[in-house]
Amino acid sequence: MRETSEIDHLQALARLIRYFCINATSTAHSGHLTSSLSATDLMTALVFGGTFRFKVNEPDHPNNDRLIFSKGHASPLFYSLWAAAGAITEQELLTYRRFGSRLEGHPTPRLPYVEAATGSLGQGLGIGLGMALNAKCLDRLPYRTYVLLGDSEMSEGSQWEAMELAAYYRLPNLIGIIDVNRLGQRGQTMYGHDVDAYARRVSAFGWETITIDGHDMAQALEAFRQAAAEQSRPVMIVARTIKGKGISFLEDKDGWHGKALDDDQWKQALREFSGVDRDIRGTIAAPDDRRPQHAVAQPADAASYDMGTPVATRKAYGAALKRLHAQFPQLVSLDAEVSNSTMAEMFAKAEPERFFEMFVAEQNMVEVALGLSRRGKLPFVSTFAAFFTRAFDQIRMSQYSGANLKFVGSHAGVSIGEDGPSQMALEDIAMFRSILMSTVLHPCDAVSTEKLVEASAAHDGIVYLRTMRQDTPVIYGNDESFRIGGSKLLRHTASDRLTVVAAGATVHEALEAHDRLQREGISVRVIDAYCIKPIDAAALRESADATGAIVTVEDHYPAGGLGDAVLQALADRPVPVSILAVRKTPMSGSGDELRDFEGISASAIVEAVKRACN
Amino acid sequence: MRETSEIDHLQALARLIRYFCINATSTAHSGHLTSSLSATDLMTALVFGGTFRFKVNEPDHPNNDRLIFSKGHASPLFYSLWAAAGAITEQELLTYRRFGSRLEGHPTPRLPYVEAATGSLGQGLGIGLGMALNAKCLDRLPYRTYVLLGDSEMSEGSQWEAMELAAYYRLPNLIGIIDVNRLGQRGQTMYGHDVDAYARRVSAFGWETITIDGHDMAQALEAFRQAAAEQSRPVMIVARTIKGKGISFLEDKDGWHGKALDDDQWKQALREFSGVDRDIRGTIAAPDDRRPQHAVAQPADAASYDMGTPVATRKAYGAALKRLHAQFPQLVSLDAEVSNSTMAEMFAKAEPERFFEMFVAEQNMVEVALGLSRRGKLPFVSTFAAFFTRAFDQIRMSQYSGANLKFVGSHAGVSIGEDGPSQMALEDIAMFRSILMSTVLHPCDAVSTEKLVEASAAHDGIVYLRTMRQDTPVIYGNDESFRIGGSKLLRHTASDRLTVVAAGATVHEALEAHDRLQREGISVRVIDAYCIKPIDAAALRESADATGAIVTVEDHYPAGGLGDAVLQALADRPVPVSILAVRKTPMSGSGDELRDFEGISASAIVEAVKRACN
Repeated sequence: MRETSEIDHLQALARLIRYFCINATSTAHSGHLTSSLSATDLMTALVFGGTFRFKVNEPDHPNNDRLIFSKGHASPLFYSLWAAAGAITEQELLTYRRFGSRLEGHPTPRLPYVEAATGSLGQGLGIGLGMALNAKCLDRLPYRTYVLLGDSEMSEGSQWEAMELAAYYRLPNLIGIIDVNRLGQRGQTMYGHDVDAYARRVSAFGWETITIDGHDMAQALEAFRQAAAEQSRPVMIVARTIKGKGISFLEDKDGWHGKALDDDQWKQALREFSGVDRDIRGTIAAPDDRRPQHAVAQPADAASYDMGTPVATRKAYGAALKRLHAQFPQLVSLDAEVSNSTMAEMFAKAEPERFFEMFVAEQNMVEVALGLSRRGKLPFVSTFAAFFTRAFDQIRMSQYSGANLKFVGSHAGVSIGEDGPSQMALEDIAMFRSILMSTVLHPCDAVSTEKLVEASAAHDGIVYLRTMRQDTPVIYGNDESFRIGGSKLLRHTASDRLTVVAAGATVHEALEAHDRLQREGISVRVIDAYCIKPIDAAALRESADATGAIVTVEDHYPAGGLGDAVLQALADRPVPVSILAVRKTPMSGSGDELRDFEGISASAIVEAVKRACN
Repeated sequence: MRETSEIDHLQALARLIRYFCINATSTAHSGHLTSSLSATDLMTALVFGGTFRFKVNEPDHPNNDRLIFSKGHASPLFYSLWAAAGAITEQELLTYRRFGSRLEGHPTPRLPYVEAATGSLGQGLGIGLGMALNAKCLDRLPYRTYVLLGDSEMSEGSQWEAMELAAYYRLPNLIGIIDVNRLGQRGQTMYGHDVDAYARRVSAFGWETITIDGHDMAQALEAFRQAAAEQSRPVMIVARTIKGKGISFLEDKDGWHGKALDDDQWKQALREFSGVDRDIRGTIAAPDDRRPQHAVAQPADAASYDMGTPVATRKAYGAALKRLHAQFPQLVSLDAEVSNSTMAEMFAKAEPERFFEMFVAEQNMVEVALGLSRRGKLPFVSTFAAFFTRAFDQIRMSQYSGANLKFVGSHAGVSIGEDGPSQMALEDIAMFRSILMSTVLHPCDAVSTEKLVEASAAHDGIVYLRTMRQDTPVIYGNDESFRIGGSKLLRHTASDRLTVVAAGATVHEALEAHDRLQREGISVRVIDAYCIKPIDAAALRESADATGAIVTVEDHYPAGGLGDAVLQALADRPVPVSILAVRKTPMSGSGDELRDFEGISASAIVEAVKRACN
């Protein structure tokens, strides 16, 4: 009896939620109505069926269950669910997709119920994995993370990265729901309504699978109960659904993806919802009021290096991470199976419980890091700098979640030598500079690296720090300070004829060029632009005014790197700038040979200075 | 009897190949020796065991079987195989990893036996899929494509994209070999020696699987024979192997990834190879001398648009593709399940046999396109511009294969409106500009789009063309010409006080601003920088000299886009430049509201011009 009335209530709620979806999208004249309708019953059963636990008036509660719509285009459903929970008014629902509304076309955390911005497909499961990992391994809380997945997006490789890692880390607190509605944007998906095709693959990847009719409320309730009882493996509910379910003329019809109803169709649809009860609301079960115990920040040891000693900046990174954990107790480290190259292994050995091996799966690594960041952690994410290009979409998307993420890429530029171009990061500065609010750092020695890792940890936002494979001599004293937005004027006299701006490996080339030029009676300034974004515009302007011409030199391709950053800083107060950068396709060779070949060595700088001075 | 002597011969060859690998890496003092040794028996059995067919003196022969080392770090093995085939001398092998050698640290097509550059893991299978698709669907040749895969790299999601698509397209001519040597770079892989874990997953994805001992020559030979006999599905050979196999002190040992032997170890290793026969060579079976029949190029129809008509540039793209196929018979189109948005569907409907639905799997789409390009096709690859970020690593890598690829990204910038930031391409110009030899185009109307699609098809190399969702009026006559490296001076008088440089949507804003300023008595030039890379430096310099100041305006984030390109063009002849770009995190809203909000609308340009003129 109770079961029947519970199902009746849930069905009435689902009816109301569909009604909300119709009105929101029809008012907006756009939005993904049919993709919302297919998952309405599933999500109603989840959110209001008792297994989902969430304090509606405290969306940040650390023990709330998490709900992520990886199929972010089903945002009308997401918003309508929270409206049915009483958290959003029916009136606000009608602002959907309007300029300034919290209810954007795809969910973003402008609305506090949104755990992370989605809308680029195939990212929600990895983000959820980060949150589940946090619950199990860090905060040690019993909350569960639910991820609604579209069938179309299951073709993204990133899904299978999340799948394999969730099984590897044995996370029964991660529950996916695939909404198999058969239709993608332009026709049938790869497997259509073959739910077994999904279940077979998911099961082979080590997940528990439950296959159901996604419009049968009793089956959905039972599936969620079963999932919640699972103790050892992540669970995937594979649900056969009908796209457009609930509106007779939309059901299972091609050509309706991302389309709203016109006014006549809207009226026609509403006729199928006569008698909908607009006053009912659903109740969400409350979680236990448990909160994580956090370690208290302690001062970190001081770093110490001897001037002139050759130390690879990647090693200084590993040392800094290990050293700074006391000061930043939320710090965690993730690496894509190259921790013995990025030197994240120095941290991993000291703090094995706060290091997560993400194997060779960079997309998922960034997704997991975002999930951890959204649960208050401070993730440092490392791999070869070149391989962050693998996760550019995830990095791009993380900015819309207000991510606090630190990306550390090793093996910068042609200086890595013999391994050849596939391993050389030559577009990484351009990539990270392009992210709107990012910070881009490229220190040239161990001391500045240590200090800038600390500055990165203290800075809230997306930071990229570029390290080098090869040893470079320590050029700064241990008490030198470095800040985001800063630079160092390394050489200057009153008679400088030009300013050389360098970063990373090329700082050492610039210093060598300075000395050679000095011997020929030519004085130049040398600036270490260790912070490429935001670049130290004031210092550059001062030097531009003083010396009248600039040479920039970088171990990176010419577009989007240090040269472009310097040009922007001087755009309103221009002086002639020569950009030395990697302009020929590199190959294997020694770092010295390659810097010479590419015209970014001390000799090339000497020549460029002489050209510019004549 | 023949069988036994065949196996003896192959074992002797494998011994020689191991000997080559040791000497090449030891001479270079670097390189991935142990990763080569694990796959030596497998690759010897393949290449010299009779099923592989290849004209050694004609590596470009269209009916050669293709061999791709997705685990590109096993390059010592790759080069040693070709040395054992007599195609590379023992002396050249010792140039491995030296500056100027064809034998780079990771394979690149500097060596003609290399089908595509590899070294960023998880890309070879997709490239091979492109070649297999070409054999089955385009060239209709019986060659087979073999891909050697590492076990570590199976964690890359891109592998499972290639896996699902190969099964979808039913390609028995694609054969993968997973070298399950248990050890990754820094320890054990996710599944260690559990070959069944791989076989289960691969099989669930619709492939035929064969599990063998990868050091048993007879098993390997039989597996390759079986694979060659398969008629309907792609085949994966899952081989249990020992990393470092053949050198007693390296076998199955952690800590040897990517390490060469020191001189003592080298001597010790060679003691285990005393009596190796350096004079034997292997024979590779020859393929049938079949060549594809190619259609002859015909002139294309002329495009025709009426001045002032609103047409989305993405529609002009679809129309151009369809129209130009006659002129470029090698043209093919690939799209990631959004062809009704990118408008590739116009081509797909006209030429269904030359259109390949790649579903929502952008990484694999780019890999497949590269495989097709390496087999002489002219792939146009389309998706939302924002989602090309998903495949940046693949795009980056394609430049080292000499790719002839055209990327067409729709839905540029905040102008797309209500769908919100996840769907807005705002870093795409920065990304494609960063590729060394790339071309970046962003036409503002249908006529220039059609002409630039044609110019892209005629240009050998990587081209990115950015199209828009919204309709924009046709501003060019049908006989106007456009070229890579060009621009259009749309408005100018003798008394211009400033130059506005725009591209795409902002050209129309600039024209509107021009008219408003004109009414206030302020004359400005307007340049349509439809080619952002290489940018028309001569035209920009001429205008800079004439007007003395520049305002750039772009629907893109500020770093790495049009503004940076203009600054670089004027770096040696500087004038003040103001960059108008998207500087606040965008949200849902109309295109007009968002261009206003971001300061890239006509009103913003008017203001910027007035500021710059005062």
